[in-house]
Amino acid sequence: MAYGLYQCLPPGVLTIVVNTGDDLDYLGLRVSPDLDTVMYTLAGMASRTQGWGIENDSHACLDTLERYRQLAWFRIGDRDLATHVLRTYLLSTGLSLTDCTRQLASALGIRAEILPMCNQPVRTKVRTAEGELEFQEYFVKRGARDRALGLRYAGAEEACLTSEVRRAIEQAEMVVICPSNPLLSVEPILSIPGMRIKLTTTTAPCVAISPIIGGKAVRGPAAKLLLELGHEATALGVARHYRGLLNGFVLDREDAALEGEVRDLGQATMVTETLMTTERTKIRLAERVLAFGEELIACRAEPGPSSP
Amino acid sequence: MAYGLYQCLPPGVLTIVVNTGDDLDYLGLRVSPDLDTVMYTLAGMASRTQGWGIENDSHACLDTLERYRQLAWFRIGDRDLATHVLRTYLLSTGLSLTDCTRQLASALGIRAEILPMCNQPVRTKVRTAEGELEFQEYFVKRGARDRALGLRYAGAEEACLTSEVRRAIEQAEMVVICPSNPLLSVEPILSIPGMRIKLTTTTAPCVAISPIIGGKAVRGPAAKLLLELGHEATALGVARHYRGLLNGFVLDREDAALEGEVRDLGQATMVTETLMTTERTKIRLAERVLAFGEELIACRAEPGPSSP
Repeated sequence: MAYGLYQCLPPGVLTIVVNTGDDLDYLGLRVSPDLDTVMYTLAGMASRTQGWGIENDSHACLDTLERYRQLAWFRIGDRDLATHVLRTYLLSTGLSLTDCTRQLASALGIRAEILPMCNQPVRTKVRTAEGELEFQEYFVKRGARDRALGLRYAGAEEACLTSEVRRAIEQAEMVVICPSNPLLSVEPILSIPGMRIKLTTTTAPCVAISPIIGGKAVRGPAAKLLLELGHEATALGVARHYRGLLNGFVLDREDAALEGEVRDLGQATMVTETLMTTERTKIRLAERVLAFGEELIACRAEPGPSSP
Repeated sequence: MAYGLYQCLPPGVLTIVVNTGDDLDYLGLRVSPDLDTVMYTLAGMASRTQGWGIENDSHACLDTLERYRQLAWFRIGDRDLATHVLRTYLLSTGLSLTDCTRQLASALGIRAEILPMCNQPVRTKVRTAEGELEFQEYFVKRGARDRALGLRYAGAEEACLTSEVRRAIEQAEMVVICPSNPLLSVEPILSIPGMRIKLTTTTAPCVAISPIIGGKAVRGPAAKLLLELGHEATALGVARHYRGLLNGFVLDREDAALEGEVRDLGQATMVTETLMTTERTKIRLAERVLAFGEELIACRAEPGPSSP
């Protein structure tokens, strides 16, 4: 989705606020999987075959770490490693994660602002029958197979909204909540103190795209996790989860029947193809979402009959 | 030389005390080139074409660091990087450099004790007309081309002899000073407070092999540096440099004419082929040096005419 928006908008217009609840410290290196995935995707470097890392990366370093008897369940490629080494180094010199991300993204020629949700470490933890697991342990090492009994965004309460995120929201013409996992990728962002209030008080319309199509997550454990934590694993369930935050909600054609119920939540709706399988479909969805946002702005500007 | 001794001696007998004055911090990673070269050499992993690193290493991480506009004058391979990442991590957990080196060497199956000269950071600095240079800046970045005006082993005065090095010297049957650069590789070791006294008070004979053959260094800037710093760039100059420390000195056949003058310094001598170009010649020199040491021990044990 971020890729589609990046392609549609003029350079320098897009700001992407990214979850860092998935971050981990691996052998002393700070790994920020979501920041990196966004960065690599916009730089055209992202792996096309796996959900993380750099295309055609090698694993010579990891092989050697295994020779040193280091458990290498977190598969870091040699090129990817450069990002973690450099980020860790820059953070150690006193740079904030925001400035560090800017420096990396700028070196890769990215003409969008990629902002971590905050500068302080926030760590998503998953409560299971085996105890509370670190997110990457739950997600990568154990393949998200454990039944989740609860989620916690450790450190979120002490985290602060950065001036960069605050300014981005204040100056935004439109806020898009991408079709990511609502509990693992979006909720950590919303858990930063001040984030929700900032989003609800901005005049820019806030639109979300459902990550659930026909009761199934397009990718990852979103549906499973929503169900386990007592949510409804449908587009409607996602719309309900974001209640109070959204002006508009985008559903897939497959879920057109839910449109009325989503409207009843006070959200304008758009029904379209939301499955992004190709570059083309990513751009098309982004175009439609931007057009939807413009409609919402126009509706507000012109006093007229409000949608039921 | 270390490789030759390792091949000649039974497993677990050899202890190698290694210079760490060449260590550097590169992007927050602790790199110990001499420890690594010894470790890789004994593990059969060392590069055969360059004087450092791992054979057939790739440079994907370094290429990506360059993409991030990081000056990559210190050529670290992907496999080599695993050592630096792991060492840095282990040190950060509070492990000493000695224990950390043991853990790495043991994982690689090395059956010799590789000991850093100390646990504290000591950094060799080279005084030049351009100012005082960090060792790796002088050596790698600037190719040892500057005229050296002085050397300093920064931090050596505050460093301590480790209990492991002390014990190794106390229990040694023989001490061999390998044909390394006397000023850059051996002198930093000797500069650790207590090291010299420990070596001169041990009953084990101390033997050095000349790194200078026919007035030329076999490898590296040893001859140039000796000259620049007012030493004689000959085997005799090296023997003089180690005066007071040695019981025996090994000269190349090419320098046989210097034997008398070396003996005048109070050092027993052995003249042999010292150029090590193949595995075979490394082992042969090691065998001869060990035999020379045994002769020196025998001479001491049996009261008889001492050499002139």
